[in-house]
Amino acid sequence: DFLNALTEVKPAFGTDDAELETAMTYGIINFSKNIEPLLNDGMVYVENVRKAERLRHLSVLLHGPAASGKTALAAHIALKSEYPFIKMITPAAMVGFRDEVAKKDYLHKIFTDAYKSPLSILIIDNIERIIEWNPVGLRLSNTILQALVTLLQAPPPKGHRLLILATTSQRSVIEQLDLAGAFDRQIPVPAVRDTQELKEVLKSVGAFDGNRQDIEEAVNMVVESNANGGGAVGVGIKTILTIAESAKFSAQPSQWFADQLASQIARYSPHSS
Amino acid sequence: DFLNALTEVKPAFGTDDAELETAMTYGIINFSKNIEPLLNDGMVYVENVRKAERLRHLSVLLHGPAASGKTALAAHIALKSEYPFIKMITPAAMVGFRDEVAKKDYLHKIFTDAYKSPLSILIIDNIERIIEWNPVGLRLSNTILQALVTLLQAPPPKGHRLLILATTSQRSVIEQLDLAGAFDRQIPVPAVRDTQELKEVLKSVGAFDGNRQDIEEAVNMVVESNANGGGAVGVGIKTILTIAESAKFSAQPSQWFADQLASQIARYSPHSS
Amino acid sequence: DFLNALTEVKPAFGTDDAELETAMTYGIINFSKNIEPLLNDGMVYVENVRKAERLRHLSVLLHGPAASGKTALAAHIALKSEYPFIKMITPAAMVGFRDEVAKKDYLHKIFTDAYKSPLSILIIDNIERIIEWNPVGLRLSNTILQALVTLLQAPPPKGHRLLILATTSQRSVIEQLDLAGAFDRQIPVPAVRDTQELKEVLKSVGAFDGNRQDIEEAVNMVVESNANGGGAVGVGIKTILTIAESAKFSAQPSQWFADQLASQIARYSPHSS
Amino acid sequence: DFLNALTEVKPAFGTDDAELETAMTYGIINFSKNIEPLLNDGMVYVENVRKAERLRHLSVLLHGPAASGKTALAAHIALKSEYPFIKMITPAAMVGFRDEVAKKDYLHKIFTDAYKSPLSILIIDNIERIIEWNPVGLRLSNTILQALVTLLQAPPPKGHRLLILATTSQRSVIEQLDLAGAFDRQIPVPAVRDTQELKEVLKSVGAFDGNRQDIEEAVNMVVESNANGGGAVGVGIKTILTIAESAKFSAQPSQWFADQLASQIARYSPHSS
Amino acid sequence: DFLNALTEVKPAFGTDDAELETAMTYGIINFSKNIEPLLNDGMVYVENVRKAERLRHLSVLLHGPAASGKTALAAHIALKSEYPFIKMITPAAMVGFRDEVAKKDYLHKIFTDAYKSPLSILIIDNIERIIEWNPVGLRLSNTILQALVTLLQAPPPKGHRLLILATTSQRSVIEQLDLAGAFDRQIPVPAVRDTQELKEVLKSVGAFDGNRQDIEEAVNMVVESNANGGGAVGVGIKTILTIAESAKFSAQPSQWFADQLASQIARYSPHSS
Amino acid sequence: DFLNALTEVKPAFGTDDAELETAMTYGIINFSKNIEPLLNDGMVYVENVRKAERLRHLSVLLHGPAASGKTALAAHIALKSEYPFIKMITPAAMVGFRDEVAKKDYLHKIFTDAYKSPLSILIIDNIERIIEWNPVGLRLSNTILQALVTLLQAPPPKGHRLLILATTSQRSVIEQLDLAGAFDRQIPVPAVRDTQELKEVLKSVGAFDGNRQDIEEAVNMVVESNANGGGAVGVGIKTILTIAESAKFSAQPSQWFADQLASQIARYSPHSS
Ligand SMILES: Nc1ncnc2c1ncn2[C@@H]1O[C@H](COP(=O)(O)OP(=O)(O)OP(=O)(O)O)[C@@H](O)[C@H]1O
Ligand SMILES: Nc1ncnc2c1ncn2[C@@H]1O[C@H](COP(=O)(O)OP(=O)(O)OP(=O)(O)O)[C@@H](O)[C@H]1O
Ligand SMILES: Nc1ncnc2c1ncn2[C@@H]1O[C@H](COP(=O)(O)OP(=O)(O)OP(=O)(O)O)[C@@H](O)[C@H]1O
Ligand SMILES: Nc1ncnc2c1ncn2[C@@H]1O[C@H](COP(=O)(O)OP(=O)(O)OP(=O)(O)O)[C@@H](O)[C@H]1O
Ligand SMILES: Nc1ncnc2c1ncn2[C@@H]1O[C@H](COP(=O)(O)OP(=O)(O)OP(=O)(O)O)[C@@H](O)[C@H]1O
Ligand SMILES: Nc1ncnc2c1ncn2[C@@H]1O[C@H](COP(=O)(O)OP(=O)(O)OP(=O)(O)O)[C@@H](O)[C@H]1O
Ligand SMILES: [Mg+2]
Ligand SMILES: [Mg+2]
Ligand SMILES: [Mg+2]
Ligand SMILES: [Mg+2]
Ligand SMILES: [Mg+2]
Ligand SMILES: [Mg+2]
Repeated sequence: DFLNALTEVKPAFGTDDAELETAMTYGIINFSKNIEPLLNDGMVYVENVRKAERLRHLSVLLHGPAASGKTALAAHIALKSEYPFIKMITPAAMVGFRDEVAKKDYLHKIFTDAYKSPLSILIIDNIERIIEWNPVGLRLSNTILQALVTLLQAPPPKGHRLLILATTSQRSVIEQLDLAGAFDRQIPVPAVRDTQELKEVLKSVGAFDGNRQDIEEAVNMVVESNANGGGAVGVGIKTILTIAESAKFSAQPSQWFADQLASQIARYSPHSS
Repeated sequence: DFLNALTEVKPAFGTDDAELETAMTYGIINFSKNIEPLLNDGMVYVENVRKAERLRHLSVLLHGPAASGKTALAAHIALKSEYPFIKMITPAAMVGFRDEVAKKDYLHKIFTDAYKSPLSILIIDNIERIIEWNPVGLRLSNTILQALVTLLQAPPPKGHRLLILATTSQRSVIEQLDLAGAFDRQIPVPAVRDTQELKEVLKSVGAFDGNRQDIEEAVNMVVESNANGGGAVGVGIKTILTIAESAKFSAQPSQWFADQLASQIARYSPHSS
Repeated sequence: DFLNALTEVKPAFGTDDAELETAMTYGIINFSKNIEPLLNDGMVYVENVRKAERLRHLSVLLHGPAASGKTALAAHIALKSEYPFIKMITPAAMVGFRDEVAKKDYLHKIFTDAYKSPLSILIIDNIERIIEWNPVGLRLSNTILQALVTLLQAPPPKGHRLLILATTSQRSVIEQLDLAGAFDRQIPVPAVRDTQELKEVLKSVGAFDGNRQDIEEAVNMVVESNANGGGAVGVGIKTILTIAESAKFSAQPSQWFADQLASQIARYSPHSS
Repeated sequence: DFLNALTEVKPAFGTDDAELETAMTYGIINFSKNIEPLLNDGMVYVENVRKAERLRHLSVLLHGPAASGKTALAAHIALKSEYPFIKMITPAAMVGFRDEVAKKDYLHKIFTDAYKSPLSILIIDNIERIIEWNPVGLRLSNTILQALVTLLQAPPPKGHRLLILATTSQRSVIEQLDLAGAFDRQIPVPAVRDTQELKEVLKSVGAFDGNRQDIEEAVNMVVESNANGGGAVGVGIKTILTIAESAKFSAQPSQWFADQLASQIARYSPHSS
Repeated sequence: DFLNALTEVKPAFGTDDAELETAMTYGIINFSKNIEPLLNDGMVYVENVRKAERLRHLSVLLHGPAASGKTALAAHIALKSEYPFIKMITPAAMVGFRDEVAKKDYLHKIFTDAYKSPLSILIIDNIERIIEWNPVGLRLSNTILQALVTLLQAPPPKGHRLLILATTSQRSVIEQLDLAGAFDRQIPVPAVRDTQELKEVLKSVGAFDGNRQDIEEAVNMVVESNANGGGAVGVGIKTILTIAESAKFSAQPSQWFADQLASQIARYSPHSS
Repeated sequence: DFLNALTEVKPAFGTDDAELETAMTYGIINFSKNIEPLLNDGMVYVENVRKAERLRHLSVLLHGPAASGKTALAAHIALKSEYPFIKMITPAAMVGFRDEVAKKDYLHKIFTDAYKSPLSILIIDNIERIIEWNPVGLRLSNTILQALVTLLQAPPPKGHRLLILATTSQRSVIEQLDLAGAFDRQIPVPAVRDTQELKEVLKSVGAFDGNRQDIEEAVNMVVESNANGGGAVGVGIKTILTIAESAKFSAQPSQWFADQLASQIARYSPHSS
């Protein structure tokens, strides 16, 4: 009757594979030795919730710099889990609601839906946006925050199991809000650290039409424009991939790529602010 | 007519034994010499309210670090009391309400229900969450707070008796809010203090399939990774029990257990922040 | 037609003797030389309002430490007044109202009721709670506060007389709020000051089954555990009376009493904070 | 048709002589050489508004310490004016309104009523209370404040004339709020300054059954208890008059009077705070 | 069809000449060499909006001390423009609205009305009051402010032209609010600077029944009472004119005038605060 | 069916060419060597969104000093794009909405409309005004801000492409609000930097009836009045163009122009504040 429950749930909610795949436009590139352990950890939690006798419920926070691939990784783990119920809660899905109460009710509704399946994954994407965080005046929706903290910790009904994967690029805010304490586990997601990893990314994605020399040239130009010297990069993989995509439309793709990336490196570099 | 009243109350509200037992998934382990006196104190208050001529009403606060077992202990005391009416008020039960007024009304309703029984226990779990406390901007629901302070102190109607057990892991917040003054008694709940107590917990719960050598090994590894040296632990029992449960799904259970626990010890250690 | 008015009023509102007596569970113990003058003052104001030609209206604030007996003393004065209309306004009676406007209207309604009687006493118990005071963020209901200040000062209609007795344990808050200025007179209510007064209280209430030796022993133990030395107590009489009542259920009543009381003394002692 | 307009207005609103006289329970005592010029100033403004060609509108603020007689003086001036329309706006009349908007509308309504008479006086009593001022958190009703500032300055319709007399004991608050600028003229109201003036007050009101010796005795005792030495008093006349009235019900009237007054002097003395 | 549009607009809104003239009770006195250039500037903007090809829209701020004649000057310019549509938006007209949204809608409505005329002037009087500015707590209506900033800058529909004249005596507030940036031009309005200008004002208005000697005497007394010495005045013309008007009702007009004016000079003098 | 979709969309929303052209009253003058690259960048993003396989969505922020031409440049790029759907969201279009929720819904509606076209441009003009930013009290609409951040980042539905051009003159505010991070690209818009560029502007627009000598004279007078010396200007092109237009109505156009411009230079010069 596992399959039965699955069928029962699917039509109404089920797993929205399309949405999950949209979150991984460029696939998952194995650009660093951190990626695999990180995915393994994710799968351990998947197995935990699926099988552990007295642990039917886990909440996991994926945190890392902007554009580092948090959403894609959460989607990837969820897809690989093959759980019968997978749902992604995004800020975009909440724009249409009238106010914080309506948003809170939506959040609650999704959890209630998940509780109907024997085995569920909820992805809560960009939680600082979900709680309407705004650093000016320390604004946020306390209504949504309280519901979120409570729902992250509440056990699902007897006989049901739930894994929650949430993402954020504002970990220090999450800590200040005592929201971090509501997560059972945390997974740090790294940026692309250095030119070695950068090359790996560009090769894997077939940048510059796969021309190795162009890649070398572009990476060299990045190193040269790097005010902080060295091969440090520290930029999220999504940023790198979209700049590479844009570069195709420029007159001088590798130069344009290097300029844009250098300015991003400067922006996120700790010495430059 | 005591039994009568009991019967009258039961169908509608009564004691939700299942919910109370869910709060004690791993039972109550006698891991420290503090546990017994603490439970005895709880039972003294139970007897007080049951029998004292001019003390028909007591409010007791169980406070201690996160995951230290506050909710389980409150549930345990309530179950042992054999009072005819026992009810647990949790943040999760309040998520569905529209706003603070609806939550306040719910709280009030539960007290009114309790007043109908000659002898009642109310558990108010996680009061900082009930009042929607948020450290950023010192947000909270003053509506709920005022109702809570008032209901904690209000005597039940003539001929009725009420014991309130509340839990919190934010005692200093409770003090700042003048909420502590609304409690007649306080019970401090300790974390697992040292490796001695830690071993006791692991043995009692049958961790590592009850393999004593694995337990020794795991505890030794914890000591080694402890940056602060010594055998200090300072982590709540729930955290220890769930890490042990998770460890089963890892390739190297005792190593994994030690790593995870060491990071928890570092997190809660006063020297590490 | 004085009696007439009285009859007219009684059925609907009248004097709620039962409620007033509930406020004096342990009676009024003459434990200190301050009690009598304090009660005399109260009775002078009662006579003032009853008879003075150009003083048909007085508002009096009873202030003192927590549990010092403010409510009991107000109830006692009211009962002794034999006024035809006596009403007590408590925070508990206001919990059920939707919001501050509903509470303000209730307050206003009670005053309007009182204005119908030729001679009335209103007890407003715990005014910091009535105005929903919360020290964190200096929260309060300005709606209720403004109504309260205004109603405390407004003269009753021609031919009607009103005495208001209010209580608070937060006098400094009341001063800050400019609320103190709305009272015509103030009565300070003292805590139990020293072991001499403490013994008096325990004897009067028949603590330890009236066993004088047990009382001496208990008091001696209190003195010994007193970190600040000397025979200073500084704890409200209600606290002392309820600890004595509880002690009966303990294995070692006098020891338990001394421990509990010592911790209360430490809590309220100026040196201990 | 002046009389006509008057008749038209009277039934609905007109001059509430009774209310004005209630504000002067003890009449106006000429206890200081400041009283007469102050009243003269008031009458000059009355004549101004009645006759000046290009000054059909004046707003005057009476400010002074608590209980100094501001309301009585405003009522006195209004009664002496013999204007056809006189209305007093008090905080008490506003308690019943739901919220600040309803209060603002009431204020507006009274002004609109006044505009219907060719010649009107409005007394706005205790403006800090009307605007719901609360020093904690600098709370106030900006809705009422804005309406008040605007209505104080707005010219009445052509052919109509309006004198506004407002009172406050919080002049510095009024200044901070830029509300003082909305008044065309200000009249300071003094407290009873010294024992000379105090004796004058007691004699005029026939205190101590008019017994001169008792008055001397009482005043001497006041001087003796005065910590700041000298014959300074600095207490409002209403306070003095009501203490004298109360004293009659005490066993030792002059002693009781002196004690009470001395404590009031201490309270308002600049050195004592 | 210019005349047509004009006719269409007039009945409903049109130019309220009476209201504009009320704003100039004492006419415009040419008391200083600054008045003429200031009026010229105003008329240049009038011609600009009437004729410039690519400048169909201008917003002008008249700012100056209290009572300096800002409203009268705006009314004067508007009357002289002979534009078919002239409307004055005052705080008094907004008192009756329920809340800031209703006020904002009214403001918007007036602009929409103006857009229907080919050529319009809107006077927005006392903008700090329109936006409900209150210095305590930096209160204001952001709803009205945002609408005002937007409407000041929004171009009227094609074929329509609009000149906006706004007044304020709180220029620094307007700057802080970034509201100053919404004005295309600013016109500073001066106070009456010295005794020379003061005499000019008194002569022009025929003060003291036109008696030159009385004027000299009064001005001399002002100089004498001036604590800051010299002939500096620094008071708005409206204040001077109304004091002169009031003085007629005093026993000693020139003395009374000098006293009152001296106190005003002290109030606004930079050295006196 | 590209044309089909276009036709389907056009009648209801389509491109409002008239509104875009109104935003460019004076055309686009090539006064500096920065203008062309800036426009080229804009067109690269246009092509990117039109054609890039994995980049169907870009958000671009045009930021620069007040009046520097941000809106005109965004309109120019949009018009040149020849996209089938172009829509401009302005603060003026939002004035009529009741509250922030209604404004947020309007914003959301426009995005939803854009999503129906295969290829759309949205111009969001003056985003600090759209979010109701007010520096006093750091006020803003968090409701609108959260919707804006989310909509800027949300990908359009499959098969649809969207380019967003937003403008602001408050870049530092945008950075503080974490709103800058929601933009994929930024385009800085410069002020008119020096007299060289100023002359270019005046010549191109045919100022002073195209009289070169008048232009020279005016520019020289500007240099002379420049307190900071040198030929620095630092004023937005719109300001220069409208002053030139106004100058025609002055008696001495070039003098008047120089005076006005000098005061603007002083206002925006970093040394003058
Ligand atoms: N190893 C990887 N980890 C994550 N994403 C990867 C990896 N390799 C390639 N990608 C691609 O990089 C992109 C990561 O974008 P994603 O939206 O997940 O980043 P993000 O951290 O969630 O960004 P944001 O901070 O904006 O939420 C995806 O398109 C994904 O397909
Ligand atoms: N001596 C003990 N005291 C308390 N709990 C114990 C004890 N021994 C075992 N347990 C188990 O430990 C767990 C304690 O979890 P519990 O939820 O009560 O902690 P908590 O302090 O309420 O946590 P939180 O701070 O999250 O509210 C329960 O599963 C309980 O069965
Ligand atoms: N002299 C006394 N004065 C006041 N109360 C007394 C006295 N003697 C005995 N009591 C008893 O002490 C108790 C005082 O409790 P009460 O509730 O009045 O204190 P309280 O100051 O109002 O407390 P709280 O600060 O909680 O409002 C009552 O039960 C009363 O019967
Ligand atoms: N010269 C006087 N001036 C004012 N009041 C006088 C004078 N002589 C006698 N009185 C009496 O003194 C009392 C003054 O009280 P009143 O309520 O006017 O004071 P108040 O300043 O308005 O007080 P509050 O600060 O409470 O508003 C009145 O009863 C009045 O009859
Ligand atoms: N040169 C002048 N400029 C302006 N007003 C003048 C002048 N000469 C005479 N007046 C008169 O002075 C008065 C100015 O009052 P007005 O209400 O315009 O001042 P205001 O600055 O708007 O005051 P407020 O600060 O209260 O708004 C008018 O009655 C006007 O007729
Ligand atoms: N190179 C140029 N760039 C931009 N605008 C130009 C240029 N040349 C001429 N203009 C004209 O300058 C004006 C620029 O005004 P615009 O409203 O775009 O400025 P803005 O920066 O949006 O101003 P604001 O800060 O008020 O929003 C337009 O009328 C435009 O036709
Ligand atoms: Mg993401
Ligand atoms: Mg718990
Ligand atoms: Mg009490
Ligand atoms: Mg008064
Ligand atoms: Mg004005
Ligand atoms: Mg613009």
